[in-house]
Amino acid sequence: MYGDISTKAAHMLGQPEVLDFFAKLVQRVSPKSYQQALLEVQVSQKFLENFCGDQVRFLARSFAVPGNHVGQMSNGYRWPFGPVAIITPFNFPLEIPLLQLMGALYMGNKPVLKVDSKVSIVMEQMIRLLHECGLPAEDVDFINSDGITMNKLLLEANPKMTLFTGSSRVAEKLAADLQGRIKLEDAGFDWKILGPDVQEVDYISWVCDQDAYACSGQKCSAQSMLFMHKNWSSSGLLEKMKKLSERRKLEDLTIGPVLTVTTATMIEHMNNLLKIPGSKVLFGGEPLGNHSIPEIYGAIKPTAVFVPLVEILKSDNFELVTKEIFGPFQVVTEYSEDQLELVLEACERMNAHLTAAVVSNDKLFLQEVLGRSVNGTTYAGIRARTTGAPQNHWFGPAGDPRGAGIGTPEAIKLVWSCHREIIYDIGPLPKKWALPAAT
Amino acid sequence: MYGDISTKAAHMLGQPEVLDFFAKLVQRVSPKSYQQALLEVQVSQKFLENFCGDQVRFLARSFAVPGNHVGQMSNGYRWPFGPVAIITPFNFPLEIPLLQLMGALYMGNKPVLKVDSKVSIVMEQMIRLLHECGLPAEDVDFINSDGITMNKLLLEANPKMTLFTGSSRVAEKLAADLQGRIKLEDAGFDWKILGPDVQEVDYISWVCDQDAYACSGQKCSAQSMLFMHKNWSSSGLLEKMKKLSERRKLEDLTIGPVLTVTTATMIEHMNNLLKIPGSKVLFGGEPLGNHSIPEIYGAIKPTAVFVPLVEILKSDNFELVTKEIFGPFQVVTEYSEDQLELVLEACERMNAHLTAAVVSNDKLFLQEVLGRSVNGTTYAGIRARTTGAPQNHWFGPAGDPRGAGIGTPEAIKLVWSCHREIIYDIGPLPKKWALPAAT
Amino acid sequence: MYGDISTKAAHMLGQPEVLDFFAKLVQRVSPKSYQQALLEVQVSQKFLENFCGDQVRFLARSFAVPGNHVGQMSNGYRWPFGPVAIITPFNFPLEIPLLQLMGALYMGNKPVLKVDSKVSIVMEQMIRLLHECGLPAEDVDFINSDGITMNKLLLEANPKMTLFTGSSRVAEKLAADLQGRIKLEDAGFDWKILGPDVQEVDYISWVCDQDAYACSGQKCSAQSMLFMHKNWSSSGLLEKMKKLSERRKLEDLTIGPVLTVTTATMIEHMNNLLKIPGSKVLFGGEPLGNHSIPEIYGAIKPTAVFVPLVEILKSDNFELVTKEIFGPFQVVTEYSEDQLELVLEACERMNAHLTAAVVSNDKLFLQEVLGRSVNGTTYAGIRARTTGAPQNHWFGPAGDPRGAGIGTPEAIKLVWSCHREIIYDIGPLPKKWALPAAT
Amino acid sequence: MYGDISTKAAHMLGQPEVLDFFAKLVQRVSPKSYQQALLEVQVSQKFLENFCGDQVRFLARSFAVPGNHVGQMSNGYRWPFGPVAIITPFNFPLEIPLLQLMGALYMGNKPVLKVDSKVSIVMEQMIRLLHECGLPAEDVDFINSDGITMNKLLLEANPKMTLFTGSSRVAEKLAADLQGRIKLEDAGFDWKILGPDVQEVDYISWVCDQDAYACSGQKCSAQSMLFMHKNWSSSGLLEKMKKLSERRKLEDLTIGPVLTVTTATMIEHMNNLLKIPGSKVLFGGEPLGNHSIPEIYGAIKPTAVFVPLVEILKSDNFELVTKEIFGPFQVVTEYSEDQLELVLEACERMNAHLTAAVVSNDKLFLQEVLGRSVNGTTYAGIRARTTGAPQNHWFGPAGDPRGAGIGTPEAIKLVWSCHREIIYDIGPLPKKWALPAAT
Repeated sequence: MYGDISTKAAHMLGQPEVLDFFAKLVQRVSPKSYQQALLEVQVSQKFLENFCGDQVRFLARSFAVPGNHVGQMSNGYRWPFGPVAIITPFNFPLEIPLLQLMGALYMGNKPVLKVDSKVSIVMEQMIRLLHECGLPAEDVDFINSDGITMNKLLLEANPKMTLFTGSSRVAEKLAADLQGRIKLEDAGFDWKILGPDVQEVDYISWVCDQDAYACSGQKCSAQSMLFMHKNWSSSGLLEKMKKLSERRKLEDLTIGPVLTVTTATMIEHMNNLLKIPGSKVLFGGEPLGNHSIPEIYGAIKPTAVFVPLVEILKSDNFELVTKEIFGPFQVVTEYSEDQLELVLEACERMNAHLTAAVVSNDKLFLQEVLGRSVNGTTYAGIRARTTGAPQNHWFGPAGDPRGAGIGTPEAIKLVWSCHREIIYDIGPLPKKWALPAAT
Repeated sequence: MYGDISTKAAHMLGQPEVLDFFAKLVQRVSPKSYQQALLEVQVSQKFLENFCGDQVRFLARSFAVPGNHVGQMSNGYRWPFGPVAIITPFNFPLEIPLLQLMGALYMGNKPVLKVDSKVSIVMEQMIRLLHECGLPAEDVDFINSDGITMNKLLLEANPKMTLFTGSSRVAEKLAADLQGRIKLEDAGFDWKILGPDVQEVDYISWVCDQDAYACSGQKCSAQSMLFMHKNWSSSGLLEKMKKLSERRKLEDLTIGPVLTVTTATMIEHMNNLLKIPGSKVLFGGEPLGNHSIPEIYGAIKPTAVFVPLVEILKSDNFELVTKEIFGPFQVVTEYSEDQLELVLEACERMNAHLTAAVVSNDKLFLQEVLGRSVNGTTYAGIRARTTGAPQNHWFGPAGDPRGAGIGTPEAIKLVWSCHREIIYDIGPLPKKWALPAAT
Repeated sequence: MYGDISTKAAHMLGQPEVLDFFAKLVQRVSPKSYQQALLEVQVSQKFLENFCGDQVRFLARSFAVPGNHVGQMSNGYRWPFGPVAIITPFNFPLEIPLLQLMGALYMGNKPVLKVDSKVSIVMEQMIRLLHECGLPAEDVDFINSDGITMNKLLLEANPKMTLFTGSSRVAEKLAADLQGRIKLEDAGFDWKILGPDVQEVDYISWVCDQDAYACSGQKCSAQSMLFMHKNWSSSGLLEKMKKLSERRKLEDLTIGPVLTVTTATMIEHMNNLLKIPGSKVLFGGEPLGNHSIPEIYGAIKPTAVFVPLVEILKSDNFELVTKEIFGPFQVVTEYSEDQLELVLEACERMNAHLTAAVVSNDKLFLQEVLGRSVNGTTYAGIRARTTGAPQNHWFGPAGDPRGAGIGTPEAIKLVWSCHREIIYDIGPLPKKWALPAAT
Repeated sequence: MYGDISTKAAHMLGQPEVLDFFAKLVQRVSPKSYQQALLEVQVSQKFLENFCGDQVRFLARSFAVPGNHVGQMSNGYRWPFGPVAIITPFNFPLEIPLLQLMGALYMGNKPVLKVDSKVSIVMEQMIRLLHECGLPAEDVDFINSDGITMNKLLLEANPKMTLFTGSSRVAEKLAADLQGRIKLEDAGFDWKILGPDVQEVDYISWVCDQDAYACSGQKCSAQSMLFMHKNWSSSGLLEKMKKLSERRKLEDLTIGPVLTVTTATMIEHMNNLLKIPGSKVLFGGEPLGNHSIPEIYGAIKPTAVFVPLVEILKSDNFELVTKEIFGPFQVVTEYSEDQLELVLEACERMNAHLTAAVVSNDKLFLQEVLGRSVNGTTYAGIRARTTGAPQNHWFGPAGDPRGAGIGTPEAIKLVWSCHREIIYDIGPLPKKWALPAAT
């Protein structure tokens, strides 16, 4: 049945006027450019296409292994949890809740969904579309509330599984409250390393600009720190990044309001960084002008601050430098051939292992960096980025048994089902079976 | 390397005198018959055989899917967590810690192992054997402590993952303390349903006797409750079970001391059950005589108490009847054709979903019961049992995202590794790539 | 790209007027009822839905296993053959060629397609639809010729792989001509066994009628022989089958012309069977009346002939009884409890192992029969049939390395790709590598 | 059972004196150094280790997908063929027959085995060892005959599947005789390409020497042609290869008799090559001296002949240059940056696609070459070779539906089993099922 619903919903969402309607709806509640909003809708549409026809049933594929005697066979099934909960944030008001909701339904669960109330209108409209495509009204509960009410509801309803996407602070609280019956995708302080092989500078500076500043840096996969091999200093990369950042403007929301950090907080954070010896502003660092964004939100130009590598690693500075600012803000540093160990140490000391990028085509360099890092979704090669549409690959943190994934059959199976083993043992009994002694 | 260690250890452990040594060592600390102890060692040996040669590397099998353009490829890897902890109980002093320890090592983790201190001598000897087979001394930390010290150590060391096998009470506390960075295999109140098709009564009564009373009922998979279709009443099953239970004796430890529940507690529990209208003792129910078992342990004859199904379901009785007694104690009940709904309701209301058995070869009956239950390891067919050697199939609970598994490649991968996605995106760039507008 | 083409084609083919157009087009060239023709189009449409979005790329999923030293990794890929050929028969003018063609394209091959020239107009229209949906004109060669010309073309063009669906005689010739570079799905003499547990007689007689006589028996999966347990004699099954067969009429093509066997040949075959002692006509056995079907085709009422089991097994009779008549014709026989061995012997002696059905819910009976037969697509259970839409499961023969499959991801991968192993071994060299002696 | 046999046989074969016995036995019949013979035995031993314990049953792993209604489930099984044949050549008298024989047995077939009669004593001894380890005498038929007798036997016995490893000529004849019921691993004209990035010259020249001349070039994976990027001319590679080839001597069989090509034939082939303009002998090219090797065998120094790339591609020369000489003989050529197309064309025009090596760590170069070639087992990276022990990865040709593989679970499943689909459809019927109209 869900194959049919997905087929219909994919086709309906793929109509130009529907795509446009949802893109604009996303834009009304989440500060991003039309292109970024459209991309979010398109990825959601592609996801639905992926689970057309019989593909939902293929998710429930089980396996069997012959047993020890005639008539015995062990079967490994993917089994639903039953009643589950989904809690998703403001920055992707359609993609994250839709993909997780459908995943939960595909595997046979009964979900209650709560989207950040500032943006929940998008999913409210989407659920109406799903109902139109055949989703039975009783299959999904959609709740609109603040976080405290939801927390209370979770503790009372005691769902078998809760998927939470959002801030680390809330994630850890929920994990303890729910005694670990949870999968998490929390914030990330995501890094990019430029390797020794300098090439395609125009392309790479463009990718850096998009990774750090698209959606005003409010992606959990946004580039928060850039490690640049010394060979890049004379390549003009930083100048190009500066120039690209200056193209961004409020009118088309290529830069826009920051929902969870105020301008003052970001400026203060920058000033704290600038107290570190050798630090400097590379570009940005000033409030946006000529706007009517309320003060409870942030409004700042795309900003990059340089901090020397050896300073970053000092225990007094490390926590400060690697503090995530969920806005258009990144730290840049440089390393020489013999400082790669320090770079890897820095990456390892960071807490959140969500995405990462290793920009290099040097096979041995890649092997070294990839082998010693644990970020969940890691891009490698000269086209590597930290942000990417999670429609044709897994997206999620690694190194944590509570880590959730999104986007692929593997992610759906991991998050929304558990292993159940049924061993058939139907006989016949051996012909000369006789009662053995007790043991 | 771990393929070689497993090969050598499997061969060494397979030597008759080594098998015998370990079986007797198990018996000295854990009250079970020689046959049961030997079986535990044999299953452990078979497990090591399963990961000979290249099979360890096959566990690290990854997959790749082509991307959107030339040079892009998404790779899904199984990745280790890093520093991890393993905590295992008294009842299987070799099998549980060895299988989980090797699993953690196979996937590349750095484990610290704590076995219940009453029985830790068995793994202490096993680790010496592994060292002899090439296990580097620094790969495993083995700690001997009480639970409180271990709890403190976990909170300080903050392992990325902890595997806990043991009581539900401690499991839930640890889950909260470790904020969910845990996999659990806790106790189970395991049920068996006899279907409408009566057959092979001798065989099935023997399986019931073994499921309920082998190891004096101190298996997390022991049969705690038996639902019997009315058709079985005149089959002589209960009489046969009674007779079989009377074969058990202290001399050969086919019945023996109960380590975590005293005799008085068990007798009191029985008396509480007998207050329910219609209840009666089917057999057992008396303390063992002529022994020197200390009073802090339990010593009781294999016991079965009958409680009517409708009484079980009453909310005043349900918690009492389904309380797990980790000893040689089971509840028996009966149902008629039209009471199957009640049986399924009872199974669903129970908390711990570890093992279960559906003794029937009636395909439609099996379909109905299996489709509406969630126990992790479920046996089906006329040879179904609740206890089974987890060497060639998955063993673990279902319906809980924290649920651990043991015994198979799937279990090792689930418990001891996480998904990491590396997307290679190496170019070349499209020949006519030009700088796009910012988004 | 093929994901997008499939998405569009699935949607276009799913429009009621397009479904209807193709169903009627199928009917014009292939003698089947509107319902059967419509089903063929619907299955084709569902297949396209199954490979929407990213599902085509998931077909190319590869895997990797770590090697013996740092930098070594073995990768198993699914690789296309390159230039390939597809030859398909008259009875399913849309489903067989479309599914195989898309499979070949999905895996990256360059196919030339030949459909039986009597019915090739259906695929000709379908390819136009695919072009409309984005299929590049140069990706598929579509050829219209007789068999001799095609044979010559194959020998000259020497495709890396040829998929042939059609008669056994041509299949064997092609296999030798092409020195085995072929996958085959040839005709089947398909059997059904009714087990000892009599139930749902109305339903099962209806399935028998459909299996034997839908499309006038011109399916390679049509029921050619029915083994009936003695318990069924008094169930009225044969009477019901007779009555159902008499509902079929020429007007709506529920019975219709037979394209490859004349009426005379079928009557002669029946008369030969009737010479066997104990044989008799159960129903049918007469030419259709009141029609203008040309004499080169066949036209006969749905026919069933009873032959005693012991006679069937006699070496003089066996070949005659198991000769496939590609028309509305079946042989029925009966067996008692102790004759199951003879039934299994008969099934094993048959040559073509395509489909089979074991109508029983008796687990031990199923185990016995399934374990000792080799038919490729085998249905089991009281709802078992020999014909089935191959859209959500594999359809193909077993027991032959040349056997092709159709319908599922596994079938596509088997038929249209081969294994290629790439072992990356990128170093670095061990630090103290020194030149070894020659070996 | 076969898990136990493998465990025992792996352990027995792993005893130093047994390893030594078999290595020397291999040397007595097949001209290779002790190291090479020992390696063959060790790989065989490792293979047996890989299928210890439950790993054989894991080969028979099936999968299941839910069907369209309650009670329906499609199951994909790996099914044996039944009676099968194995025919293997002289050059690996233990490894090839043992791995294929065990693969056939693991999947449940009944094999007849024929090894080249010059070397069959090795497997004769091995089968005795297997009998000792529990192999039932009736499970394997071992036949000692010449090829003509075997051909006759195959045509009469008509095995369901035949695995043939040996020359292309016999392979094609058998494929036609057996009408394609065959899997082949025939000879290969294997190439190696050195990429533009020159590095590790000592290591790579050693690998070239081993790939071309170990076992006197009598491996189906031996390096027959070397494409060298111009950047390597001044690296000293050819001089180092010459020097290394001169270390080889008859005494320790690092160079030895060639069983299927005479000295005269090889010298004549060389002289034909030297008629091509620009050709020259790089080293070798002379008969071995001081030996008593009979004239029906070949005896020649390790030889390399240079032929210019443009000459190779001329249609008059191509067949000559790419003729496989199953001895210590290779062709070397050179290409410049803009001649890569010619190299790829040459590789594509060759017939036998067994192994290949691309020696480079340049990711874009690897992508280009790997994407446009089809060799089955392809090594890539600076440590790439053409010959490798097929114990932990697949070894076999690609691009041919008849291609066999050896060495991994995937290879065993592909060669020794077929897909069988069993669809359970057990009901219950929908409650309001009513007889539909005929279709």
